[in-house]
Amino acid sequence: MAPPVAARRIPDSAPRPARGGKGEITRAQILSAAVEQASAHGFESLTIGSLAERTGLSKSGLFAHFGSKAELQMAVLEDAARQFTDEVFLPALKAPRGLKRLRALFESWIEWPARANLPGGCPIHVASREYRHTPGPMHDAVMEREKLLARELRKAVNLAIEAGELAPRTDPDQFAFEMVGLVLVVFQGEMIAGTEEAHRRGRVAFERLVKNHSA
Amino acid sequence: MAPPVAARRIPDSAPRPARGGKGEITRAQILSAAVEQASAHGFESLTIGSLAERTGLSKSGLFAHFGSKAELQMAVLEDAARQFTDEVFLPALKAPRGLKRLRALFESWIEWPARANLPGGCPIHVASREYRHTPGPMHDAVMEREKLLARELRKAVNLAIEAGELAPRTDPDQFAFEMVGLVLVVFQGEMIAGTEEAHRRGRVAFERLVKNHSA
Repeated sequence: MAPPVAARRIPDSAPRPARGGKGEITRAQILSAAVEQASAHGFESLTIGSLAERTGLSKSGLFAHFGSKAELQMAVLEDAARQFTDEVFLPALKAPRGLKRLRALFESWIEWPARANLPGGCPIHVASREYRHTPGPMHDAVMEREKLLARELRKAVNLAIEAGELAPRTDPDQFAFEMVGLVLVVFQGEMIAGTEEAHRRGRVAFERLVKNHSA
Repeated sequence: MAPPVAARRIPDSAPRPARGGKGEITRAQILSAAVEQASAHGFESLTIGSLAERTGLSKSGLFAHFGSKAELQMAVLEDAARQFTDEVFLPALKAPRGLKRLRALFESWIEWPARANLPGGCPIHVASREYRHTPGPMHDAVMEREKLLARELRKAVNLAIEAGELAPRTDPDQFAFEMVGLVLVVFQGEMIAGTEEAHRRGRVAFERLVKNHSA
């Protein structure tokens, strides 16, 4: 299958992994291209063959990095989760606890896919859709990530309640649920309404959500 | 690629299409299995080969129904759209105009994937994610469907405004945008919270959305 989104060719200069050396750099580049592919076409589209086609690397070179399709898929999920932590979660933690941090989280989250060149939005959400009914290591890993995210979101909402910025009666899980819904529809809405308009609508809805739960 | 969700094998008795006859029935069964596969693994996973594996039909039998991968993908998108119209939109039109109809639409929408055995939620949303950045017939067809949906949703919200059940200042596109967000997060939330809890949270949020825009 030829991946329809623009391929990102990587020079096949260092096919053998070597910690900290050129091999590690190539591995990071391969993972970056693979995360993009998973975002648009799902983790089941990730085969050594399709990734070879996408990156321009040899299949044997890719096998040296990832021994199997299953290993490749897991590495891509882990890399997507690392990107989410580094580019969405950690920057938001710089904002003070409470509404400022929740808002920073929402902002960095809706801006992430465009900035990180993820055409189909958050790859963890894509994996969750693909593996929810399929027992196995990918199912377990996705569940783990989703639970971790739910826990961190609950914590961020609770901090806003403790800061007196959200009402004590606020249900943190319900707030987090609706916040995720807005993130999903912003990614979805970009296609029809355009990125700017989808982000504007997302912000209007987020502020309404906050207002509804204000102390 | 072996599709990881349970395959739906179809007896290979009538590989050649014949309008209204056994061929049509087989075509409908193939499309149904293909819509399921697209829901979980995307439209790019739909190849004559993967569908042969999934349904147990011969590749030549499938070629008799769909001449190419592109033709197959388009037929699956059209069938998913037909299912959405028949199972979500038309039943909701039986409810009286206004909030009752909006609520009926939301209810039949969130219940659709479980009822129709669509493991990854609405296939049109999946296609929208896959083809938004890929020019071609699938991109155009998905855009067309998304615009049609946006128009119908706007109409349903406008009817509730005209009925005096939503405030005249309500922005129909904003309301529809948030409603779609709730549908998306219900599908997403089923994995972690379970179907019942995800639906309950979706309803709480939907009623809050309605209350915020009540006349």
